[in-house]
Amino acid sequence: SNAKNILILPGDGIGPEIVAQAERVLSKVAERHNLEFNLDHALVGGAAIDATGGPLPDDTLAKAKAADAVLLGAVGGTKWDGLEMAKRPEKGLLGLRANLGLFGNLRPAILYPQLASASSLKPEIVAGLDILIVRELTGGIYFGQPRGERINDQGEREGYNTYVYSESEIKRIGRVAFEAARKRDKRLCSVDKANVLEVTVLWRNIMNDLAKEYPDVELTHMYVDNAAMQLVRAPKQFDVIVTGNMFGDILSDCAAMLTGSIGMLPSASLNEAGQGMYEPIHGSAPDIAGKGVANPLATILSVAMMLRYSLAEPDAADTIERAVSRVLDQGLRTADIAGSDEQSVSTEAMGDAVVAAL
Amino acid sequence: SNAKNILILPGDGIGPEIVAQAERVLSKVAERHNLEFNLDHALVGGAAIDATGGPLPDDTLAKAKAADAVLLGAVGGTKWDGLEMAKRPEKGLLGLRANLGLFGNLRPAILYPQLASASSLKPEIVAGLDILIVRELTGGIYFGQPRGERINDQGEREGYNTYVYSESEIKRIGRVAFEAARKRDKRLCSVDKANVLEVTVLWRNIMNDLAKEYPDVELTHMYVDNAAMQLVRAPKQFDVIVTGNMFGDILSDCAAMLTGSIGMLPSASLNEAGQGMYEPIHGSAPDIAGKGVANPLATILSVAMMLRYSLAEPDAADTIERAVSRVLDQGLRTADIAGSDEQSVSTEAMGDAVVAAL
Ligand SMILES: CC(C)[C@H](C(=O)O)[C@@H](O)C(=O)O
Ligand SMILES: CC(C)[C@H](C(=O)O)[C@@H](O)C(=O)O
Repeated sequence: SNAKNILILPGDGIGPEIVAQAERVLSKVAERHNLEFNLDHALVGGAAIDATGGPLPDDTLAKAKAADAVLLGAVGGTKWDGLEMAKRPEKGLLGLRANLGLFGNLRPAILYPQLASASSLKPEIVAGLDILIVRELTGGIYFGQPRGERINDQGEREGYNTYVYSESEIKRIGRVAFEAARKRDKRLCSVDKANVLEVTVLWRNIMNDLAKEYPDVELTHMYVDNAAMQLVRAPKQFDVIVTGNMFGDILSDCAAMLTGSIGMLPSASLNEAGQGMYEPIHGSAPDIAGKGVANPLATILSVAMMLRYSLAEPDAADTIERAVSRVLDQGLRTADIAGSDEQSVSTEAMGDAVVAAL
Repeated sequence: SNAKNILILPGDGIGPEIVAQAERVLSKVAERHNLEFNLDHALVGGAAIDATGGPLPDDTLAKAKAADAVLLGAVGGTKWDGLEMAKRPEKGLLGLRANLGLFGNLRPAILYPQLASASSLKPEIVAGLDILIVRELTGGIYFGQPRGERINDQGEREGYNTYVYSESEIKRIGRVAFEAARKRDKRLCSVDKANVLEVTVLWRNIMNDLAKEYPDVELTHMYVDNAAMQLVRAPKQFDVIVTGNMFGDILSDCAAMLTGSIGMLPSASLNEAGQGMYEPIHGSAPDIAGKGVANPLATILSVAMMLRYSLAEPDAADTIERAVSRVLDQGLRTADIAGSDEQSVSTEAMGDAVVAAL
């Protein structure tokens, strides 16, 4: 059979709860669109540490490599905060990114009109917001060598990391961003700190080179400090933003928060073969884990991204996105997106509503 | 005489215009408080490049070292954007910071009640906002070695920078932050990326060590991506934030923009001897340079910080801050802080009003 293989990694905190609802949606949409998927499950993050002693068991990695797509809940929690860095839940996530070569991270920041009032920004500043942040995910200072702690010439401890990008690493993420901009409003803003950091001078030069291949896309450059300001001041000026791993981490969270609804935002992490890992951009939220109140919509929308980007089923993706829009229209809200005068529903009730709306 | 020496560096763009008004305020407050200052002027940034070929002439550096305090306008502009990094206006600023050892950068983000509506955030989110960002300014990835561009093992170009902090560098900025928190609401949030970067693991450990010496200050830690989100979501949760050079660059601009009035925000950069450089946090704004419309208040408030931190004249500092508040009460607004239905005044008229209010 040509059934596609999907690996499910529930992870920690609210991960298992939200992933359970996303799986229900995936089954239902498969039924409606006559698709066949083989689902498998594995451990990652804190759940894997507890069961096996490490955050990324060999078995999980092997299954992830063999899958057409991976759906991840979230990793991490206070329970594992005391562990040294190499043994923490986050290393499971970083290990998956690195080992699968998932260099292209797509993080849409979209304001759902039904949720406009949830933003901490004034409505006129964020109404209609629709930005795509393209973050490089397997290079930069996250993975650069050398790194660690050492004793310096003065005999004191010193910590160090290396921020490094090669030409080919910059080119391939640049292409992802230019291609994405081409399918949208054709405006790409590359964010760097080229007035201070040499590595981002190369970044800027290579983006300029690439721009010649994409004459239909308008390329601009912005320093990262200014980008953080502009996101707060006038976020709608942006269409697609492309940046490195660390700046992308910061700016994508900032952009997500502009919408006021990080419980709504999915993400995709892709490799050169189009294989991908899909996850909500919010974290494992240990404070509300197990209470049945988490918002499953970001994970459900991650399934839609998975259908679109790794499984070549754009119609099924549309079906899910329309269903989510419909439940918002119906007024269903989990606690994170409910206004002070609105009733909130459980994780499961939200899942029920999306399944019913499909 | 024990007259204090102040070096004035007007710099580029709107720098000369705003510094001119700040000088008038300084003279008037000196007269009122019976203080004697020796003022000298020198070139830095693009103005220095045009006159001497380099952004930080020896003469400027020598005068800055000899001064009790330095007042800087702003550096940079599109005119010099084509130059290679080592010869750009920004190198003048970075050179001053490094050569004077100005490691302690204080960046208040205060929302003036008179200007509450200028923020892009909802009034209830930002009303009463008063955060102090303490940014390390002479270390981290801004100055780390090695750095540059090289050919890697695959024969391609690669750019690289080094993010490094030693124990003593972290300790001294930590002390500045703990001391500042002690004089405020006694809450210090240290921002790092200790789940990914080894250098910030050392940062976090040393902040925890220091906390034992400041039992009256509550220390918390936050990852930089979360900090960017929390600044947008609920900025009033913060009192003092301490972080490294690069994260501080990004977060302080984000925090400043929350107020909607970056034309109002001063900064201080201090060394271990209490000598300092004072500058508005906004840039040289080449688009409005020479038009007489720039807001001089951030520079005027930088003079107040200078009087407080380097010249031991807190009463004179208070006088300036009260005068600024008074002109805002009177409804005076430069274009950047004028509402759509408000008339705006010129740079000089704003200077006149502050001088009159002293
Ligand atoms: C958990 C952490 C390692 C991760 C990152 O920094 O990339 C997270 O913040 C993210 O953005 O996916
Ligand atoms: C001009 C630039 C080098 C500088 C910096 O990055 O430190 C500026 O952004 C600042 O924050 O003072």
